[in-house]
Amino acid sequence: MSLIVMKFGGSSVGTPERMQRVAGRIIERKQQGHSIVVVVSAMGDTTDELIDQSKLLNPNPPAREMDMLLTTGEQISVALLSMTIHQLGDRAVSLTGWQAGIRTEAVHSKARITDIRPERIFEALEGGNAVIVAGFQGMSEDGEITTLGRGGSDTTAVALAAAINADMCEIYTDVDGIYSTDPRVVKVARKLDEISYDEMLELAHLGAAVLHPRAVEYAKHNNVKLVVRSSFTHNEGTSVKEEAVMEQGIVVRGIAFDKNVARISILGVEDVPGVLAHVFGALAENGIDVDIIVQSGVQNGKADFSFTVSLDDRERALAVIEGIRSKVSYLEATSEADLVKVSIVGAGMVSNPGVAATMFEAISKIGVSIKMVSTSEIKVSCVIAAEPLHEVVRALHTAYGLDTTEQAFVGGPQDRR
Amino acid sequence: MSLIVMKFGGSSVGTPERMQRVAGRIIERKQQGHSIVVVVSAMGDTTDELIDQSKLLNPNPPAREMDMLLTTGEQISVALLSMTIHQLGDRAVSLTGWQAGIRTEAVHSKARITDIRPERIFEALEGGNAVIVAGFQGMSEDGEITTLGRGGSDTTAVALAAAINADMCEIYTDVDGIYSTDPRVVKVARKLDEISYDEMLELAHLGAAVLHPRAVEYAKHNNVKLVVRSSFTHNEGTSVKEEAVMEQGIVVRGIAFDKNVARISILGVEDVPGVLAHVFGALAENGIDVDIIVQSGVQNGKADFSFTVSLDDRERALAVIEGIRSKVSYLEATSEADLVKVSIVGAGMVSNPGVAATMFEAISKIGVSIKMVSTSEIKVSCVIAAEPLHEVVRALHTAYGLDTTEQAFVGGPQDRR
Repeated sequence: MSLIVMKFGGSSVGTPERMQRVAGRIIERKQQGHSIVVVVSAMGDTTDELIDQSKLLNPNPPAREMDMLLTTGEQISVALLSMTIHQLGDRAVSLTGWQAGIRTEAVHSKARITDIRPERIFEALEGGNAVIVAGFQGMSEDGEITTLGRGGSDTTAVALAAAINADMCEIYTDVDGIYSTDPRVVKVARKLDEISYDEMLELAHLGAAVLHPRAVEYAKHNNVKLVVRSSFTHNEGTSVKEEAVMEQGIVVRGIAFDKNVARISILGVEDVPGVLAHVFGALAENGIDVDIIVQSGVQNGKADFSFTVSLDDRERALAVIEGIRSKVSYLEATSEADLVKVSIVGAGMVSNPGVAATMFEAISKIGVSIKMVSTSEIKVSCVIAAEPLHEVVRALHTAYGLDTTEQAFVGGPQDRR
Repeated sequence: MSLIVMKFGGSSVGTPERMQRVAGRIIERKQQGHSIVVVVSAMGDTTDELIDQSKLLNPNPPAREMDMLLTTGEQISVALLSMTIHQLGDRAVSLTGWQAGIRTEAVHSKARITDIRPERIFEALEGGNAVIVAGFQGMSEDGEITTLGRGGSDTTAVALAAAINADMCEIYTDVDGIYSTDPRVVKVARKLDEISYDEMLELAHLGAAVLHPRAVEYAKHNNVKLVVRSSFTHNEGTSVKEEAVMEQGIVVRGIAFDKNVARISILGVEDVPGVLAHVFGALAENGIDVDIIVQSGVQNGKADFSFTVSLDDRERALAVIEGIRSKVSYLEATSEADLVKVSIVGAGMVSNPGVAATMFEAISKIGVSIKMVSTSEIKVSCVIAAEPLHEVVRALHTAYGLDTTEQAFVGGPQDRR
């Protein structure tokens, strides 16, 4: 008998039929003898509908009031899910974030959990109840209702699992696990049985809808055993853990790609100490995240360098660079879009030379030139032209021996509306 | 400068336009220099929609989970109203029931307020905010979310007004005050400037949608000055207070009628001590409220008596009486529907003989026979056939000099959908 946290996203409870299926899954787990704590998101489009309502009245509402508004979405979910479990003959108690003892920073719309006081959860478990906790929300020390921001319900689940020392945290979703790459792009993508926290973080863009990076970090930090699985099937999911077993002959675990990339180049920069610090300091001050940075060699005391930012930040980044002309002397700043960052990820590559070379070769065979490269112990990323992305991903998937013959299961019958 | 509680019902905030109008009213009051605490109900049909959603999943849900579900309705209202006030350039803070310090019994769906701890309200007022409190809800000592049942938001407003020692509690609604009778029945009904708590309680059926009897009782008990007024106009409303001034020559303040009446008659009851106690004890045990009771004289050791119950309780009342045949000997029990209870109400009638006689005369002139009569110090009620009710009410209205020449204002432009 284990203590298990089960997390269900909004689409898993978006209709009465789905709500009933989720209630059934919870009761199944209870009848196997486990103690069950459930975390649920707001149903289907509830959050978007609430945001639409608010925009009619205030296009730019105070974050505090927005939290007050949006947290009702999860409160509705937990109440209805608890009722459904009762209707199916079992016992359940719903709890809001504050009732579940989830304390956060005194920040609105993106608070971090500071502490969990799970007395009421244990009390309700002892009463034989499934405990249904509202995801995404908490309370600050001064009694203000807060939200955790994006990926909040995943984080709630993982943080709860850590706080109550759960044996496992199951993240239920509409795919049946983490795939070696996006199955919509590569039909022969393979479902992974295991993956390490670090690999999962690198593959975040693949799994963005499945598992939020912040929750993975939290799980890694607290060594929470995560399992990503489908709420539509009983297939085994993907375990996310500290050390994941690599299959024989497999070095690369997965292939991720990110289209949200723009490249900024600063040409003819005078090579004096502190130049990079000036440039990236100014970008950071303006809240612009920089990903890959590449500096070419210095010629005649001048250097060129390039970096990537998200597409949204492209114009702002250029403006920031224009703004520091008085401090940094350079010839010209340019930008480029219609790019993509393709990454291969695998904990095994650190001990396997030639992994990067295989990537470069596979890409060049298609006639695509590589514009930037960045490496870490478990990752190689290349920035290339956005076309022909899918061909590149398929070629890499084949080159690293990841192709499988099994059919990927992607979502329930009504799920791809 | 005063401290004022303003209460708005669900229809007053049911559309974005109405929400904006309410926000405008609040800002108006603030700009007059008053400190403002607002109580709001759930918008329009929100509560009914939530109930519909729950019925799909559990036709008979636990009351605790229903409270968890329904309290989101008011939480949405307060958040949106606060945002709207911000949009219009003023300051506001929304609070849930528990945040506003509203403590209740540990009972679900019909808890009573036990205590209010208004520290956060005062804090927010000091910050220059309108404080927007969710009506209808509170929290028990053990941190459970509770609801106050019918008329809950009125009760929240009055209880808050008492707890913070407000100068006035304004109940905003879709009519511009309390009328001498239903203006839909009597076009020349007059709006009352003042009315006493006791009269208001007797007229509750007239004002059911306007002001809940429980809130009036609470106001009387705590001597809270109530004003009922329209959220659509700036007309003076009706003040509800301990001692209301009577207009010259007016003895009856208002005329109420209630169609939810059935008469039960028990004929040929053996006249032994304890018979009435048996009958009404049994009815009370079964949760059946009895209103008027009339016993005729005793003949040959047998008595007839009649009483009224609500229509819904008619069959159950007959069954209860059948069930005590072993203890109470009687010939026959019958029942009668298609009745109405008409009442004249006025604090002045105690010192004015002949008030009842005028009523009987007016009714008999129309050729309607009176089936039962009941009197109190400020009220005379007659049970009569349901037809012609409107003619009777109009005749009484005229007989007591209540007809006015002003046009009654009933509701906003979109209000009578």
